[in-house]
Amino acid sequence: MEKADIGLIGLAVMGQNLALNMSDHGFTVMVYNRTTERMQEFVQGAAAGASITGAETLKTLVSGLRTPRKIMLMVRAGKVVDTVLDALLPLLAPGDMVIDGGNSKFTDTDRRVALLAGKGMHFIGCGVSGGEEGARHGPAIMPGGDEQAWPQIRSLLQSIAAKVDGVPCCQWIGSGGAGHYVKMVHNGIEYGDMQLIAEAYHLMREGLGMDIDAIQQVFARWNQGVLNSYLVEITADILAYKDKDGQPLLDKILDSAGQKGTGKWAGINALELGVPLTLIGEAVFARCLSAFKEQRQQAQEVLGLPRARVQENAEDIVDAIEQALYASKIISYAQGYMLMSEAAQAYGWNLHYGDIALVWRGGCIIRSRFLDNIKQAYVQDPGLDNLLLDEFFARALRNAESAWRKTCVLGVQQGIPLPAMTAALSFFDGYRRGRLPANLIQAQRDYFGAHTYERVDRPRGEYFHTDWTGQGGGVASGRYDV
Amino acid sequence: MEKADIGLIGLAVMGQNLALNMSDHGFTVMVYNRTTERMQEFVQGAAAGASITGAETLKTLVSGLRTPRKIMLMVRAGKVVDTVLDALLPLLAPGDMVIDGGNSKFTDTDRRVALLAGKGMHFIGCGVSGGEEGARHGPAIMPGGDEQAWPQIRSLLQSIAAKVDGVPCCQWIGSGGAGHYVKMVHNGIEYGDMQLIAEAYHLMREGLGMDIDAIQQVFARWNQGVLNSYLVEITADILAYKDKDGQPLLDKILDSAGQKGTGKWAGINALELGVPLTLIGEAVFARCLSAFKEQRQQAQEVLGLPRARVQENAEDIVDAIEQALYASKIISYAQGYMLMSEAAQAYGWNLHYGDIALVWRGGCIIRSRFLDNIKQAYVQDPGLDNLLLDEFFARALRNAESAWRKTCVLGVQQGIPLPAMTAALSFFDGYRRGRLPANLIQAQRDYFGAHTYERVDRPRGEYFHTDWTGQGGGVASGRYDV
Repeated sequence: MEKADIGLIGLAVMGQNLALNMSDHGFTVMVYNRTTERMQEFVQGAAAGASITGAETLKTLVSGLRTPRKIMLMVRAGKVVDTVLDALLPLLAPGDMVIDGGNSKFTDTDRRVALLAGKGMHFIGCGVSGGEEGARHGPAIMPGGDEQAWPQIRSLLQSIAAKVDGVPCCQWIGSGGAGHYVKMVHNGIEYGDMQLIAEAYHLMREGLGMDIDAIQQVFARWNQGVLNSYLVEITADILAYKDKDGQPLLDKILDSAGQKGTGKWAGINALELGVPLTLIGEAVFARCLSAFKEQRQQAQEVLGLPRARVQENAEDIVDAIEQALYASKIISYAQGYMLMSEAAQAYGWNLHYGDIALVWRGGCIIRSRFLDNIKQAYVQDPGLDNLLLDEFFARALRNAESAWRKTCVLGVQQGIPLPAMTAALSFFDGYRRGRLPANLIQAQRDYFGAHTYERVDRPRGEYFHTDWTGQGGGVASGRYDV
Repeated sequence: MEKADIGLIGLAVMGQNLALNMSDHGFTVMVYNRTTERMQEFVQGAAAGASITGAETLKTLVSGLRTPRKIMLMVRAGKVVDTVLDALLPLLAPGDMVIDGGNSKFTDTDRRVALLAGKGMHFIGCGVSGGEEGARHGPAIMPGGDEQAWPQIRSLLQSIAAKVDGVPCCQWIGSGGAGHYVKMVHNGIEYGDMQLIAEAYHLMREGLGMDIDAIQQVFARWNQGVLNSYLVEITADILAYKDKDGQPLLDKILDSAGQKGTGKWAGINALELGVPLTLIGEAVFARCLSAFKEQRQQAQEVLGLPRARVQENAEDIVDAIEQALYASKIISYAQGYMLMSEAAQAYGWNLHYGDIALVWRGGCIIRSRFLDNIKQAYVQDPGLDNLLLDEFFARALRNAESAWRKTCVLGVQQGIPLPAMTAALSFFDGYRRGRLPANLIQAQRDYFGAHTYERVDRPRGEYFHTDWTGQGGGVASGRYDV
């Protein structure tokens, strides 16, 4: 029997679809799953007729692959990956490659890259986005890790990836955990995009009193404009979907959002690196708040709901909301890129920001027309300090600004929560201020904790302490901390 | 020579002041510092005449203490604590107690409590707040860890703590790292309070065009009302302080705020536990943004500043800002208490929420009249699910609501960033909604990732998947994750 091109371990929804995708592109795949039944069901069912064979043991899998072996893991991120590696590595030989396509934590990937390198093997931590459909027909793929393996897996990964204008949405990201890191930022941005859409929907539904069909048409129209994107497109589909009783299914769905970790990791990493990732932070927290369903119901009774006021010129307001969503989205991506830029410095990665936009343009959940503009910004100036300083985006924000403010004012007045949109506007208003009131915060810190401050009329790096009350001990801090 | 009541290691600003405070209260203290010069300088200088003696080595320190020994560490949190423990523990005997008064991470404290318990010794992780002045004249103290030691250190710690109405601001918090955890939440709340004050100042200064003296009078007046607190009081002092040239010193201070970790830990822990700690999150991120000073200056040139519009009835607006600050503060504390409540569940602590308010009422940086109301809420209902459901706070929010919205609208319209105030309002508007648009987020997750959803017309715990496009593979997720 001919040996297979690649092995794939883990046959949940993403694993199955990726295997089928590989087979479509002319690769022979041998698959393994912890429970053999699921493997057999797949091979005899969905994979019947494809170049996919099953292995009942890891040993069979390994011996069925061409050398150097390529094995893709599509198992649950975390301990399971280590468990599989523990079982797998003794069966492999130097030169073999393991590709982790799950949502692993980038620090775990760093560690695993080093572990395999120590055995002469290659570990690739590979962000894969696109959900079920992307995995089947072309996801965005963000490979990072041991760069020596890249030439050997490049054609496989690029051939199964989505293509936009013939360019595969799969480019080498960087060393160590860089691929999974960029996937984490992607997921954070995805949280932000989803929250922004939910806020726009909420404002139209409760603030403007529009019915679901009217909102459906708005999203369908928005998908033809600057907001053109997968998430806006599927929102229109969702709004159109009727339950068996002919009523919108959306209204039957419980408003308690789940999450599996990558969004919160992005927020945690931003806090660790000191990057103001406010929009994604609010998006993650909004999901957390949604989970307090019972307490919210209780709070509605105790605190009451504001009465919505009828809005004149609802059409104008809908256009303003489109602009607000667009501007907020620009802020979110700018913050995500700020985070990647700090991470590149902190972790020693040479990230190609334009390539990252290119990878995200197609296949993945956040794919959109918008990412072409980001790519363009980095083509024009590869050393761009911040997306908001790019001429295209600066102009876009200036154009949207007044509608954006109007939308936020409406939400505030109507009592419709727009945490992400208002956070984005606050960020914009803060970011473009050469002078912020943080001088007062520094003064307070020096007052109560002798933390010292710098002065605007002295060079950076000179620290001053004032005895504000005339009673201080004159002991400057440097250890004690708030 | 008589043996000392307590040893104190680390003579930075907090350590020196705590030693003097202990001496004032009749305790004899032996102090040690890594650099002997600083110890000698202190003993012969600020501590001259006090019951404070110096030790040049840890061995001298340990042999100079009454048994069972009590040693307080006032060293930099992190590795230094472990280094000191490594050197100190071999010199100690079972029954001895080590009290860490630094801003240690609560997980480190968990670990150290177990380490000492294994040797028959007792470790106390003790949050201390109050800055230089508090340490000297009575800080708030949050002890947790090995409860066996509490009866032996209680009188010492309670005597040096601040008192309000004769009650010491020092109560046992809980096992393991609970004391340091509550201190971490305290510090996060402190970040929030400081940010809210900075926003109020900014809005008056740039939005209303008030001069610094007028703003000073506003803060002095606010300190007589519901906002009465240490931080409002020192803000009035800071605004009044003139530099040598007679100009306000505040205007000379660089607007780039520092931070040392506890605020961001609170944000990180909130993300880990799934608690929407939005206000503190924005406050931490606002400090991060302030640190991007050069980029902000560049952005001001590229993006321009909005022109401030003259406001009529500035006095009314100032009153509205007071209400907005008060309401936002209520939200911040409610979020902080939500976090502690989740932590208590997650880490197995039996936290007494009323006692925590009592400890924070005096001595510490966030001390305020307001904390009496929180204490009161938990006295009335020790099982209170959320501060916002307490009658007093619910009424306060309803009373402030209209002024709060007006203030946020002003900030949005004038382009003055109010990230914490608007985040607080968004939270309030979300928290009191029994129905949020998270159903749309769940629908999206099910659409692209087969993540399933629950239904409002079915019991919790039943999960549904819809094939939204009619083309899905019907493989439900459960492993693949956004």
